[in-house]
Parts: sequence; structure tokens; C-alpha cells
Amino acid sequence: MSDAEPEDENSTTIDRNMAAENPQNAKAVEQIRELRQSIDNVDAAIVSLLAERFKYTSMVGVVKAKAGFAPADYQREDRQMARLNRIAIDAGLDPEIAEKYREFVVTEAKKRHRRIAESGGNPGVLDVFA
Amino acid sequence: MSDAEPEDENSTTIDRNMAAENPQNAKAVEQIRELRQSIDNVDAAIVSLLAERFKYTSMVGVVKAKAGFAPADYQREDRQMARLNRIAIDAGLDPEIAEKYREFVVTEAKKRHRRIAESGGNPGVLDVFA
Repeated sequence: MSDAEPEDENSTTIDRNMAAENPQNAKAVEQIRELRQSIDNVDAAIVSLLAERFKYTSMVGVVKAKAGFAPADYQREDRQMARLNRIAIDAGLDPEIAEKYREFVVTEAKKRHRRIAESGGNPGVLDVFA
Repeated sequence: MSDAEPEDENSTTIDRNMAAENPQNAKAVEQIRELRQSIDNVDAAIVSLLAERFKYTSMVGVVKAKAGFAPADYQREDRQMARLNRIAIDAGLDPEIAEKYREFVVTEAKKRHRRIAESGGNPGVLDVFA
């Protein structure tokens, strides 16, 4: 625990200093450290996959804008919802989390599709990362 | 386009029927179909990884509850934020999306940690999927 940062009751900073000051918790701190490394690896994989996903949806946005299609396709969304629900159950994930993930990426993709359509099908209106 | 579902100006249903009715758009529909298959593959991978992530965070929740640690660790969150920002830029993803992803998973994990702590370290209080 850093001397400079007081803790409040809703936060516990878990690191090597904290373990050194609280030997009775050293094992718990070490377990959390290892689990966090796995969580960080999963996050790196997911963020990399999100990068690919938004490249694909940006391409969809360009095709839609050129063909004059609307950003949304509700029938597609219904099918995605049912499919991700099945995948979540098979994978042992609360389907509510899969649905929140779907809402998050679909909302972001639609925002970007609208920007592409407004600029006449030019994805360059997005930032350098999209 | 299904006869039963009228379209509004904000939604275009893109499928084989629509392509058959609008031959001038057939190429765009086919391009979107292929891109959507890639998007679906990415989503299957991400939902599977989210399942692993929530297994790990559930384990962290049990360790924290048993050791009496609070669900939150703001210093950990600051490090995660900086790390995911770097990974997003390297991967070509708008860092704003990576930050929204982080907020989403951290919020869900904290909710579950609180439930675990309230039940005395028993992750069984979560549903069968967690």
C-alpha cells in the first residue's frame, strides 16, 4: 500500500507491499496476482479481437453507405442475440454478460456506421484507429 | 425482407431475399454476408474468452472475500487502463472502445465480487453460469 494514497473502505490495493505488511494475507495476495496475470492475458486477446471486429464492421459500414442501406438491421440483431446466448451457455458464461457485450459492440458499430454514411462512405471520418 | 416485418428508415434487413428483390445490390449484400461471418467468428471467440475471464474474476472474488479485501482495487484499475490503452493502439483499435470494454468487465466483475462477499465467500450465490 502506498503511503501517499489513503484507502477507503470500498477499495483494497493488493500488491507486494501490502503482502509484506500483512503476512497473514501473503498467500491470498499471491493467488490474486497469478489470477490477474491470466485476466490480463485474456484482456490482451479480447482487445486484439475487438480491433479485428471493428475493422470488419467498418468495412460493413462502407458497403452499407455506398448501397444506401440503413446502419441498423434488426433481424440480424435478433439472430446475433440468439446465437451469442447459445455460445455463452455452452461456454459457461452468464448469458446476461454476453448480451451486454453484444449491446456494447453493436451500439459502437452503429455509431461508426452513421459517421461513415454522413461522410459519403468514407471511413476516414473515423479516427486513425478505426 | 419478410412480408410480415415492415422496415423503417433506420433499419435495412440485409439477406438473400433482399438481394433477390434488388439485383443492383446483390454484390453489396454478398460482401456484407461474408463480413458478418467473420464478425460472428470473432464474437464466438470473444464470448468464449469472456467465459474464462469471469471464471478467473470469480476466483479472485472468493479469495478477496475470504481475506476480507474490498471488491475494488483502484490502483489495479489504473494499471489496467494504461495497459489496455497501449494494446488498443498497437492493435489499431480506437482506445475509447478498449476503455469502454474495460469499464464493462470491471463493473460486472465488481458486482459479482460484492455478491460473493455478501454470501461469505461462496460463489454459488451467482447463477449456474458464473
